[in-house]
Amino acid sequence: MIVVLHPGRSEEEIQRVASRVESLGLKAHVIVGTERTVVAAVGSQRRDDDREALERLDEVDKVVPILAPYKVASRETKPEPSVVQVRDLVFGGGHIGVVAGPCSVESEEQIIETAHRVKAAGATGLRGGAFKPRTSPYAFQGLKEEGLKLLAAARDETGLAVVTEVMTPEHVELVGKYADVLQIGARNMQNYHLLQAVGETKTPVLLKRGPSATMDEFLLAAEYVLDQGNQQVVLCERGVRTFESHTRFTLPLATVPYLQERTHLPIVIDPSHGTGIASLVPSMCRAAVAVGCDGLLLEVHPNPAEAVSDAAQTISPDTFATIMDECRKIAGVLGRTVDGQA
Amino acid sequence: MIVVLHPGRSEEEIQRVASRVESLGLKAHVIVGTERTVVAAVGSQRRDDDREALERLDEVDKVVPILAPYKVASRETKPEPSVVQVRDLVFGGGHIGVVAGPCSVESEEQIIETAHRVKAAGATGLRGGAFKPRTSPYAFQGLKEEGLKLLAAARDETGLAVVTEVMTPEHVELVGKYADVLQIGARNMQNYHLLQAVGETKTPVLLKRGPSATMDEFLLAAEYVLDQGNQQVVLCERGVRTFESHTRFTLPLATVPYLQERTHLPIVIDPSHGTGIASLVPSMCRAAVAVGCDGLLLEVHPNPAEAVSDAAQTISPDTFATIMDECRKIAGVLGRTVDGQA
Amino acid sequence: MIVVLHPGRSEEEIQRVASRVESLGLKAHVIVGTERTVVAAVGSQRRDDDREALERLDEVDKVVPILAPYKVASRETKPEPSVVQVRDLVFGGGHIGVVAGPCSVESEEQIIETAHRVKAAGATGLRGGAFKPRTSPYAFQGLKEEGLKLLAAARDETGLAVVTEVMTPEHVELVGKYADVLQIGARNMQNYHLLQAVGETKTPVLLKRGPSATMDEFLLAAEYVLDQGNQQVVLCERGVRTFESHTRFTLPLATVPYLQERTHLPIVIDPSHGTGIASLVPSMCRAAVAVGCDGLLLEVHPNPAEAVSDAAQTISPDTFATIMDECRKIAGVLGRTVDGQA
Amino acid sequence: MIVVLHPGRSEEEIQRVASRVESLGLKAHVIVGTERTVVAAVGSQRRDDDREALERLDEVDKVVPILAPYKVASRETKPEPSVVQVRDLVFGGGHIGVVAGPCSVESEEQIIETAHRVKAAGATGLRGGAFKPRTSPYAFQGLKEEGLKLLAAARDETGLAVVTEVMTPEHVELVGKYADVLQIGARNMQNYHLLQAVGETKTPVLLKRGPSATMDEFLLAAEYVLDQGNQQVVLCERGVRTFESHTRFTLPLATVPYLQERTHLPIVIDPSHGTGIASLVPSMCRAAVAVGCDGLLLEVHPNPAEAVSDAAQTISPDTFATIMDECRKIAGVLGRTVDGQA
Repeated sequence: MIVVLHPGRSEEEIQRVASRVESLGLKAHVIVGTERTVVAAVGSQRRDDDREALERLDEVDKVVPILAPYKVASRETKPEPSVVQVRDLVFGGGHIGVVAGPCSVESEEQIIETAHRVKAAGATGLRGGAFKPRTSPYAFQGLKEEGLKLLAAARDETGLAVVTEVMTPEHVELVGKYADVLQIGARNMQNYHLLQAVGETKTPVLLKRGPSATMDEFLLAAEYVLDQGNQQVVLCERGVRTFESHTRFTLPLATVPYLQERTHLPIVIDPSHGTGIASLVPSMCRAAVAVGCDGLLLEVHPNPAEAVSDAAQTISPDTFATIMDECRKIAGVLGRTVDGQA
Repeated sequence: MIVVLHPGRSEEEIQRVASRVESLGLKAHVIVGTERTVVAAVGSQRRDDDREALERLDEVDKVVPILAPYKVASRETKPEPSVVQVRDLVFGGGHIGVVAGPCSVESEEQIIETAHRVKAAGATGLRGGAFKPRTSPYAFQGLKEEGLKLLAAARDETGLAVVTEVMTPEHVELVGKYADVLQIGARNMQNYHLLQAVGETKTPVLLKRGPSATMDEFLLAAEYVLDQGNQQVVLCERGVRTFESHTRFTLPLATVPYLQERTHLPIVIDPSHGTGIASLVPSMCRAAVAVGCDGLLLEVHPNPAEAVSDAAQTISPDTFATIMDECRKIAGVLGRTVDGQA
Repeated sequence: MIVVLHPGRSEEEIQRVASRVESLGLKAHVIVGTERTVVAAVGSQRRDDDREALERLDEVDKVVPILAPYKVASRETKPEPSVVQVRDLVFGGGHIGVVAGPCSVESEEQIIETAHRVKAAGATGLRGGAFKPRTSPYAFQGLKEEGLKLLAAARDETGLAVVTEVMTPEHVELVGKYADVLQIGARNMQNYHLLQAVGETKTPVLLKRGPSATMDEFLLAAEYVLDQGNQQVVLCERGVRTFESHTRFTLPLATVPYLQERTHLPIVIDPSHGTGIASLVPSMCRAAVAVGCDGLLLEVHPNPAEAVSDAAQTISPDTFATIMDECRKIAGVLGRTVDGQA
Repeated sequence: MIVVLHPGRSEEEIQRVASRVESLGLKAHVIVGTERTVVAAVGSQRRDDDREALERLDEVDKVVPILAPYKVASRETKPEPSVVQVRDLVFGGGHIGVVAGPCSVESEEQIIETAHRVKAAGATGLRGGAFKPRTSPYAFQGLKEEGLKLLAAARDETGLAVVTEVMTPEHVELVGKYADVLQIGARNMQNYHLLQAVGETKTPVLLKRGPSATMDEFLLAAEYVLDQGNQQVVLCERGVRTFESHTRFTLPLATVPYLQERTHLPIVIDPSHGTGIASLVPSMCRAAVAVGCDGLLLEVHPNPAEAVSDAAQTISPDTFATIMDECRKIAGVLGRTVDGQA
C-alpha cells in the first residue's frame, strides 16, 4: 500500500503513520516529496480493513493498494490458463464450449426438443432454469425439482452437460444431484454462503458477474469458491448496468482480454442477458468469439415468442444453428475451435 | 401495456398482435397513428413475462408497461404512510428513528460502550454486524452467534432496539432470536429465498437497496417480503454504484421524496455506506433529515481508526452527538422530530 | 405519445388532458383501463417540449413517447444504408474503412513515418490531432495549424485521407482546408454551434459519441449536422462512462447492430479510447469487425512509449499490421472486406 | 506518481524504469516489496501524458498519481474559501445566493413577471436562457439577443443579477454585454475554447458539471477559466448520469462537502435539472441548504405547465416562495443565511 499524507505534516505526524503501518506487520518506507509525503507499506498485505484503518488517520489523505486483493484466482499464482471440462463440454485451452437452452424448463416436450436441436447445431451444454430468480414475486418461479428431472432426462437422451442455477445453500445438494455445472446467478454473485456451499462440492461452477460488480469483486467472489477447495470455476460476463437503457444491460467484451491477463479461469460470454434483445444476439456471439472468449451461454427456445420467461432475448434453434456456423468460421481463422468444429 | 408496432404493418399483422394480446386475457384497443400503429392492452397486467412475449413478435417494435409492477408496497393499495415501530425505535409518522453502532461487533466492551454512547446522544436503535458479508474471503467475517449475544446484552443494558444483518435463510431463526430488526444487506436485495424467509417471520425487516437496483426492483424486493405476510418493512437507501469513484457510492437523496410518492413504506438513509468517507457523514445526515427521510443508519465506533471493518466511514460518538443535535434542529423547523427530541 | 393519468381521475379531468393534447395539434384517444386511464396523442409529434408540458399537468403521471425524436438519420426516412467515401477511404456497403495514426501530430518525421507504416498495413485513412482537447490546461494542446500542414504533407506522400478534429466553429474553415474528414470529439458531441458549422460544409463528418450520451442524443447530434444539409455523417462509438474503472471507458459493441437497425449512417468503432489499454486493442478490433462495424479508428505511433499523448492506449505499427491481418480474415469469412483486402 | 512494476522484474529492468522516470525530470525511489517492486517518482508532476508514457513501458503494470491534477482551484493553493459577488448576489462566506427564473426567456411579460415574483420571495439572481442548447434541432432554440435584452430590462426593473448561458466563444462578448454571470452549460463543460474565452473576461462564471464528469475533470475545467486570469468561478452540481432513469439525472449532494475539502470555489446546486421532476425540487432544495451549499439555481415560471421548455421540472412562484421560507429556516439553525434572510 501507498499511504499518502495530507500536505504540511510534521516529522512527528509522519512517524505516527509509519508506526501504525508497522503495527499491521508491514515495513514502512517514508518518501518525502516536493508537495506530499508518502509512506510505502511493504508486505503481503491484501486486507481492505487495514487499508481503511490507515485511511482513517487524521494525517492521511488516501491509501492506494498495490497488490490485487485476490490470490488463488490470479495468474501470478497459476500462470497457465485453466481448462474446465465436464462430459463433452470444454471451456478453455483454445476451445469455446457452447451452452444453449431455454431460460426456464417449461415441459418435457420443450426441453427434450430444445436439447436435440441445440445438439444438432453443435452445442455440448444444455442450459435451463428449474429454480428461477425472478424480479417479481408474481412471475413464474420455475418447475423446481420437476425441472431438474426433465433436464436430466434431456441429458440422458443427448449426452449434453446440464448447466442450471442454484439459488440458495440448502438446494446445493439437490441441484447437484442433477446438474453437471452449478450456475450462480448474477443476483447471487455476492451471496457468500452460497459461494461457500458450492465451493464445498466437486461440481464445476459457472459464476455470473453481478451487474455492478467490479473486476476485483468478481474475482473475489470466485476466490470464495476456490478457497473452499473447488478449483473448477468458470467466469461468465453477462453485462453490467449502466446509463444505457436501450439494451437490457451493457455487455463489455473487453472483460475477456482484461481478465485473461489477470486470472487463469476460463471466461464465458452470455449475449442473451448481455443485450436482452434477440436481434442483437448473433452479432454479439460473433464478437465474443473474435475477442477470445472460452465459452458462450445462450437462450434458445423452440418457439421464442411462446417462452414463459425472457422471450425478448431468446433465439430460435434455426438462428442458433446459423450463429454456430459463423462462430466456427471466425474461430477457424483465429486458430481456435467452437463446439461442433471438425 | 402499450404495444408499439413497426411502421408499415398490414391490417392482418395488426390483428395478429391484437389476438395475441387478447390471448393473454387483456382487451386490445388498436390506435392507428400517422406514423405508427399502437395496440393498447387493457387489464390488471403486471407480468414482465407477458410484456416480453409481445415484444418478441415480429410485428412489434417495443412494449411500454403502464402499471407499476409492484402492488402491496404501492400507495395506490395503501395511501397512508406506514409506521414501523419496535421498542422505542420508530420509523415514520413524522419521526426519524436513528440506528447507530459499529460495522462489526468486535468485543463486549466495544459494543456495550458504543450502546451507552449512542443512547446518550439520543439514538433508539443499535446496529452491529455479527454475520458479516465481506467482499474478500480473507476479511473478518464477524463473531457470528457470539456477536448476537453481545448485541442482546447491549440491548439489555440500554433498551436500544437491535438491528443486525441476516445473510442466509438458515440463519433467520437464529438471528431472529436476538434481533429486533432483521437487516437484509445490499448484496442480498435480490436473494429471494432470504426475502421469503424473513417474510415468514413477524420481525420487522430493514431492506437495503442493491447498488444497481432500480426503484421498481427495490420495491419488488420489498414485495417479496410483504407477499409472505410480513408488513413491517423499512426501505434503506445506501447509495448506488455510478462512475463516481471519489465517494464509495453515490447517495441519491431524491430517492426519499420519489419513493414517498409511490410507496407507504418508511425510508431510511445510510450516509456511512452512501459516502464511505467519515468527513462527509455529518453534512449528509443533515441533508437526509432535510429531505424528509424516516430514519438514519450510521456507523459509530468508540475509536474509529481501530475499527476492524469500515474504519474509513465510521464516526466517533462525539461526532455522532453533534450530528444528532444538528438533525434535531433541522427537524424542528420542519415540524418533524428526531430521536432524543423533547 | 401515450399520456398516463394518475388513478381515480374524473371524467372532467380526463377531458382537460384530452383538450390540452388537442391544443398541441394532436388527436386524442381516451382509453379507460381497469386501473389507469391513458390518452393516446396521435400525430407526427417529436417535441420533448410538448411531452414535458403534458407531464406537468396535475392529472398526468407520466408521458411515454412513441416516435423516435430523430428523423433524417432514421432508417424509416432512408431505409438503405449510407456509404461515406472520401479518397480511398470507404465506410459502409460491406466495407470496413480503417483510419490509423497518432493521438497528436508531433513532428514531420513522426507523422510521415506513421503514414507510411499504416498505409503499408492497408489503412486508407490517417488520423492525427492538430487541435487537441485536453482535460488539463497544462497538457500539450497540439501543434495547431502547423500540425494540419504536416497532415496534409503526409497525405500528399501517401494518398491517405486525413481525419482530424475541429474543436470550435471559428476553426471549421481552417481545418476544412486540410482535412478530408472533420472529426467532432466526444466532449463536443453536444456543442451545437459546432455541429451546425460543420453541417454547413460539404466535408464528411466523423461524429464521436459523448461518454454519457444516449442513443437518441447521439442520433439527434447527427441530426443537427444532417439538418444543415451535410449528409456525409459517420457515427463513432468510442466507449461510455460507467462504474467500470479498470478500462478507461466501457466499449459497448452492441451499439453497432442496435444503431444499424435504426439509422442508415455508417458506424465506426474506436477501440483505443474505448479501452484505454494498448494490450486490449487487438482483440477488440477483431470483435468490432465480427460485430459488423463499418470502420475502425485506431491510435498508432512509431514508438508508443514516446507518444506525447495517449501513450497508454497507443499501439505500434507492427501490432497494427497484425490486427489488420486478423481483421481481414474475419471479414473474409463473413463476406465483408477490410482495407487492404484483395 | 507511484509506478508499480509487473512481478518478477530484473534489476536491469527496474533501472530502466527508474531512468525513464528521471528523464521526465523526477527523482526515482525504488522500493522492493515482497511481491512487487514500485518506483516512487518525486516532483511537482501533474501531467497525465507523463503518467501514460510510464504506463506504456513493458515493465510497468500501472501508475498511480499522487498529486491532484488541478492547482489554482485547490485549497492547497488558496486555503480560505472564495466568495463570488455581483450586485446583491453573493455565493459563499456562509451565505447561499439564490438564482431563479424560467428555463427560456419567452416574452417580456413572462420574464418581467417572473423577476418580480422571485425577487419578492427573496432571490437576488435571475436566470433565463436566451441562447438555448437543445438536444433536438427541432426544439425551441431561444430568443437569442432579443432574450438578452429582455433579461437586461428585467434587471433594470428589479436589480436582480442576470445569469444566462453562453454557448460558443463568438457569443462571449455579446452575452457579456447583458449578463452579470456567464453560465457554461453542462454540455459545454469541456468546450475548452469557450472556457478560455470566458476566462479572458472579468465577468463571473457559473460552470456546470458535465453529466459524466469526474471531480478531477470538473476542477480542471474550472482551472481552464482560472488559468486565463478570471478568478470569479462558481461551480454548479446539476446531477450526473447513472443507471437511474426514474429521475432525469442523479443529484449527488455529497459533491458539496467533498469539493469544499478540495477547492476554495463556491458550489451551487441545481435541483431542477438534478431531478427533472418539479415535485422533488422543494425537498432537494432543503437538503442542498442543509448539506452546506453556497447557492441554489432554480427553474421558476409564472405558469409552469405553459413553459416552452423544461416544463416538467419547473416550479411556480408560490412553490418557490415556500421553498425560500423553509431554506431560510434551515440555514438559520445552522448559522448560515439564504437570500431574503433578515
